[in-house]
Amino acid sequence: MRTYIADIKTLDDGSDVTIKGWVQETRKIKNLMFIIMRDNTGSIQVTAKKDSMKNYDQLYDITRESVISVYGTLNKKSISKSGMEIQGIEIEILSIADTPLPLGVIDRVSADFDTRLNNRFLDLRKPEHLLIFQFESQLLFGIREFMNKENFIEVHTPKIVAAATEGGADLFRVEYFEKNAFLNQSPQLYKEILIASGFDKVFEVGPAFRAEKENTVRHLNEFTSIDMEAAFIDDKKAMEYLENAISYAVNRNIDLMHTKLEEYGYHLEKIETPFPRISYEDGIEYLNDHGLKLNFGDDFSPEANKILAEKFNGFYFITGWPSDMRPFYTHPDTNPALTKSFDLQLNDIEVTSGAQRIHNYKMLEDNFMKKGLNKNDFEFYEKAFKFGMPPHAGWGLGLERLVMNLLHLNNVRESTLFPRDRTRLSP
Amino acid sequence: MRTYIADIKTLDDGSDVTIKGWVQETRKIKNLMFIIMRDNTGSIQVTAKKDSMKNYDQLYDITRESVISVYGTLNKKSISKSGMEIQGIEIEILSIADTPLPLGVIDRVSADFDTRLNNRFLDLRKPEHLLIFQFESQLLFGIREFMNKENFIEVHTPKIVAAATEGGADLFRVEYFEKNAFLNQSPQLYKEILIASGFDKVFEVGPAFRAEKENTVRHLNEFTSIDMEAAFIDDKKAMEYLENAISYAVNRNIDLMHTKLEEYGYHLEKIETPFPRISYEDGIEYLNDHGLKLNFGDDFSPEANKILAEKFNGFYFITGWPSDMRPFYTHPDTNPALTKSFDLQLNDIEVTSGAQRIHNYKMLEDNFMKKGLNKNDFEFYEKAFKFGMPPHAGWGLGLERLVMNLLHLNNVRESTLFPRDRTRLSP
Repeated sequence: MRTYIADIKTLDDGSDVTIKGWVQETRKIKNLMFIIMRDNTGSIQVTAKKDSMKNYDQLYDITRESVISVYGTLNKKSISKSGMEIQGIEIEILSIADTPLPLGVIDRVSADFDTRLNNRFLDLRKPEHLLIFQFESQLLFGIREFMNKENFIEVHTPKIVAAATEGGADLFRVEYFEKNAFLNQSPQLYKEILIASGFDKVFEVGPAFRAEKENTVRHLNEFTSIDMEAAFIDDKKAMEYLENAISYAVNRNIDLMHTKLEEYGYHLEKIETPFPRISYEDGIEYLNDHGLKLNFGDDFSPEANKILAEKFNGFYFITGWPSDMRPFYTHPDTNPALTKSFDLQLNDIEVTSGAQRIHNYKMLEDNFMKKGLNKNDFEFYEKAFKFGMPPHAGWGLGLERLVMNLLHLNNVRESTLFPRDRTRLSP
Repeated sequence: MRTYIADIKTLDDGSDVTIKGWVQETRKIKNLMFIIMRDNTGSIQVTAKKDSMKNYDQLYDITRESVISVYGTLNKKSISKSGMEIQGIEIEILSIADTPLPLGVIDRVSADFDTRLNNRFLDLRKPEHLLIFQFESQLLFGIREFMNKENFIEVHTPKIVAAATEGGADLFRVEYFEKNAFLNQSPQLYKEILIASGFDKVFEVGPAFRAEKENTVRHLNEFTSIDMEAAFIDDKKAMEYLENAISYAVNRNIDLMHTKLEEYGYHLEKIETPFPRISYEDGIEYLNDHGLKLNFGDDFSPEANKILAEKFNGFYFITGWPSDMRPFYTHPDTNPALTKSFDLQLNDIEVTSGAQRIHNYKMLEDNFMKKGLNKNDFEFYEKAFKFGMPPHAGWGLGLERLVMNLLHLNNVRESTLFPRDRTRLSP
């Protein structure tokens, strides 16, 4: 029976234990060696004595990051840093690491990001990097728990599609047998078809693909999109689902892994709802009062977002964006220059975009025209509006970008296992 | 406040209630009309009287599958089939359906599958079709709950990749900026890199892409793959995780939705573990005793699978497949002609494939050679074997195929919202 290193502290002094993991460091004093061993839960010192170990000579030459299985006795009165060590009885060598390592695991020397990504399997062995993905996994589990309680159906819509969600730009082309196809940029149109299908409330977690040439610390060409759509709700209700899903999941994560997060320098505070809301128009006014010169229709610059972040400090919504700035499926407000839309910001970064959507067939057709789109490209979609489409609203949330901002990482690639960008297709 | 139709039975007679949904059927008697209204939880009769309804004339002409919002009073002494009806006070028309419907929702006339898929948004309004996807969503939630309890980290690996998982065949090509890329057939290689990264236990749910030209009732070119991989385990432990995950999730689903499943003719029985196991070699012998003529190295034909299905009736494992029949990363058994591999069968259909994987770098290199693969294509992968790779095992499971077989559907497209096959790319 294997014991994880983090669980050793619950065992009695003198217990026999088997642990499995990586050789992080060794120190050798003639006929005695100390191995700092690591698994995904922690690290511990193992002692091996020449007298009592058949394969001591082999072990003596073991390289850093080799994999071993240790059977031994727990000593809780050790003078090692943790006050515990395993006195090895049998140590099996499972895999020997080559030298030199292309990237250090415990070295303080920082490698450039390309070297780290080229050797991601070593980079991810650092506990502070593993923790990002444990956090991400649990965050998503929390979001799913919330959505499940709210009776959302989790769905899977196709990623190989015949038409562009947003109308043509930034698409990756796929050779699909004899046909031309694309990778989907967003499940938006399919979520809406499911609303027409009577699914009432759907959400999806899956890859989304954007052939954007921008190569910044916030952009990925493939990312994990969390999308929801619900029937018979408006933009305001969609915002409530969003703030409640995020606060539920983040606060659950803090409860689960607060100590570990703090240990590795990730500071998170419990989230309170409702999040503050500011309209686009009030935002413009506020920013102009604070030294900027913005007109209706202007996007918020990084500088503008920094000013708003200082005001709100954390999550906040910007609502009621101009029609010209939102996609064709966005529902107009009573004033048709504005839409029933919102962005969720975390400090100075947009993490979610959402809106009430158009459900009226005629209004949708008019919007295709206004946006210069060819309605024939969307036949599979607009057909679903002709035979009973309820009002509906929803949002889409980039998982990696959310985690990047929650954990104050400085590059979205830090919260992406194997990032895809303009220049990177491997590993 | 909206009430879902299924929740109406818990309300008191005479309660005021708002329901929202689709007009399934209407009957009209001069100044009185009856509307059978449907939402995603059920259906109920609504009465509308000319005397008390401002928009009665509009309502009188309402078409099937239009969307309405009804505010009215609950009458629990109705002579309608369910013994309940809503006496309408205000009925708002939210969306009018065109006529004729390209596909009926409640008609008993069965449409051909292409017509159904072309009008999937109407096809999915049938409660027996919706139920398949409610089942699928909850099944996956159950699997995740199990994996989370077992400390698996849910991960997302890239779908745009530079190399073929299985070595070149059946790949969809993607134009990735200036480079050539492919859609991933399976997260296998990435899961293994994560094992080398010290992630210990990972699982992923995501799309997998196979450019297979076969167009059968069991094949999809894009499907949802559930993949797991764990360090320091063998094929036998991987089989335990699999049977326990499936039985946990299926039995949870039966508890949750037994009544509804029975109502629509889906019969499921509680699953018991462990599942029976038969080795490939014993399978050959058993099949030859039952009239077939199979040699070592032959695959099991549909006829062979039917014979085994009669013997086992439900889930069973076939273990120890010949090396020639398994991918390059499969760990050989003590007898090198065999592998530490398994298939999970549900009756006569394979639903999962798994194995202990090779972790020794030298053995992996030899296997590239044996299988005629170019190791340079796999540099990003085999590098992770050089610096400490633990023994590991795992499996991959097709979600839609599992649901198809659990619910005894006759086509995997029935458990796929928007199937992709050789000829279908839309909707």
